[in-house]
Amino acid sequence: MKRIAILGSTGSIGQSALSVVDAHADRLQVVGLAAGENADLLAAQIARYVPRIAAMATGGAIDRLKQAGCPGNVTIAGAGRDGLVAVASHPDVDLVLCASSGTDGLEAVLAAIEHGKTVALANKEVLVMAGGIVTEAAARKGVDILPVDSEHNAIHQCLHGHSRAELRRLVLTASGGPFRGKTAADLAHVTADDALKHPTWRMGRKITIDSATLMNKGLEVIEAHWLFGVTAEQIDVVIHPQSVVHSMVEFVDGSILAQMSVTDMRLPIQYAFSYPERWVSPLPTVDLARVGRLDFQPPDTASFPCLRLAYRALSAERSLPVVLNAANPCRRSLGPRACARYRPRVRIESLT
Amino acid sequence: MKRIAILGSTGSIGQSALSVVDAHADRLQVVGLAAGENADLLAAQIARYVPRIAAMATGGAIDRLKQAGCPGNVTIAGAGRDGLVAVASHPDVDLVLCASSGTDGLEAVLAAIEHGKTVALANKEVLVMAGGIVTEAAARKGVDILPVDSEHNAIHQCLHGHSRAELRRLVLTASGGPFRGKTAADLAHVTADDALKHPTWRMGRKITIDSATLMNKGLEVIEAHWLFGVTAEQIDVVIHPQSVVHSMVEFVDGSILAQMSVTDMRLPIQYAFSYPERWVSPLPTVDLARVGRLDFQPPDTASFPCLRLAYRALSAERSLPVVLNAANPCRRSLGPRACARYRPRVRIESLT
Repeated sequence: MKRIAILGSTGSIGQSALSVVDAHADRLQVVGLAAGENADLLAAQIARYVPRIAAMATGGAIDRLKQAGCPGNVTIAGAGRDGLVAVASHPDVDLVLCASSGTDGLEAVLAAIEHGKTVALANKEVLVMAGGIVTEAAARKGVDILPVDSEHNAIHQCLHGHSRAELRRLVLTASGGPFRGKTAADLAHVTADDALKHPTWRMGRKITIDSATLMNKGLEVIEAHWLFGVTAEQIDVVIHPQSVVHSMVEFVDGSILAQMSVTDMRLPIQYAFSYPERWVSPLPTVDLARVGRLDFQPPDTASFPCLRLAYRALSAERSLPVVLNAANPCRRSLGPRACARYRPRVRIESLT
Repeated sequence: MKRIAILGSTGSIGQSALSVVDAHADRLQVVGLAAGENADLLAAQIARYVPRIAAMATGGAIDRLKQAGCPGNVTIAGAGRDGLVAVASHPDVDLVLCASSGTDGLEAVLAAIEHGKTVALANKEVLVMAGGIVTEAAARKGVDILPVDSEHNAIHQCLHGHSRAELRRLVLTASGGPFRGKTAADLAHVTADDALKHPTWRMGRKITIDSATLMNKGLEVIEAHWLFGVTAEQIDVVIHPQSVVHSMVEFVDGSILAQMSVTDMRLPIQYAFSYPERWVSPLPTVDLARVGRLDFQPPDTASFPCLRLAYRALSAERSLPVVLNAANPCRRSLGPRACARYRPRVRIESLT
């Protein structure tokens, strides 16, 4: 029985993680849950999974959680980062899934590592901001960081059983988002609502916006650098509209391994939960004869400068990725009303 | 230093293997060479690589080899299968590459296994004819059989680091050969010369003919059954005209790993020589953004019945694959003149 804590349990990844738990109730036990402001949903999750400990982002949210009703044997940790840290470092936890978006997860991830927990990481900002600190701590404590982002999870799958010395190059795939093929001039007239219409993945608002600007791919380049110990020059990005190939590894002998699957986050989440095993999944698989065709093209970094900026930030100096991440709008600035006014290129280009 | 013997050194695979040796002369030493009738080329190979032992198919060929000049410190083994066995079981050999086509290699492969040599297998008939005997012997002696066929080599790469229990399905890719898209009626009028025009691979005559009829893919289905311990129902074939994806493994969680590379046999040969390491190769890699597009479609087993027959032979009973292989024309019957008269469907359909 693997005992897990989920940070961000009411979000898109958190809910998918709980459905993985449902499918493997004989192998997974929920010990900790942490959420932001959605007290009603967290109360329902607590009633169903009865964790040892739960936390929310604010005192107000915790008050609402208590009003919604919370079993007496569930410890309510403090609000905000203290609560996340308490859940992540709870002595009964084996594995912490960090799916709280933005910068909130960093302290909790470091606490999990210090307490020897395996970390399943769905929050890429943690590595973009503090990749050196996090990977150094994980190496020192001998803790696995298992990426849940579909691209890095794909690379982890392709690298399994191989030494890093055999790795020549990573190829991150990108769907290209809803604006693939548009020119810089076209992009002057798009709205945030347009950006939220992702062609292949259903995800949270922030990552969907970041996908439309290719900033998400830029953050993933930085994340890949830290996870797999490769330089910016060893990471390529290729546009692949069908989102069937989730990423690839090229080895020193010229051979490439690619991982494919349906676009469903339950697959990489389950992989992280089951690793180093693989468990049977009820998900459908990819039938390539039915898919028929896979396309690949180079990214257009003239019309989508965020990707180019991320490469520059990674290559330039150690703190520039932090600036890049801070300049990129956070989840809170991407509420429904803020989204309507969001013009990512304007803010990000102040970096150049 | 890995000490290798090459059975079939003057053929297409054998010559590629020697060019892999040239690229890794610090890691590979040629200890044994065996060839069919091409005494001039074998004499040149012996002069260059100075093996301990060499063999040829017939006494006449050995006479010509001696006339061509052979260093005195090279032992000339007996002719035919005895010679192959002597080379394969020579005490100085660590790894035997069996690239002699057709049925000739079987005794040599069994001898190599009994003497504890790693076997790199480029001759699929060995497993089609005697897969149960060969894999039982390899398991008993704890000997690795490393497939060199690009498809099975791809699967071996995808499976590395995983347990067989995690494997759900294999997907063998097939270029479809020169007759892809043709109907049974079209195929009544094709010639062997047409069949020898393979669109993506440059190979020997027999395998090129077998590729045109899809019999090669059928033999590979049987080979995959023995190599990876899967049933016929767990092996799918998909037509993939670009020959970039060489085959795939689907795991029990629904995730697929695929191996891609250029169509150059030096890559799987080097993989078998270097395994479990990977060595730097001078070969180019695949640039998917340049390739642009990969297509996949189901095989047409109505127009190409050999593939269907191979599935039937594998599913029906243990000796039927032997009949299938015997009914399929061997290398000797596929000389330039015989090829002009070759109508594979007529002979193979007698099985139905």
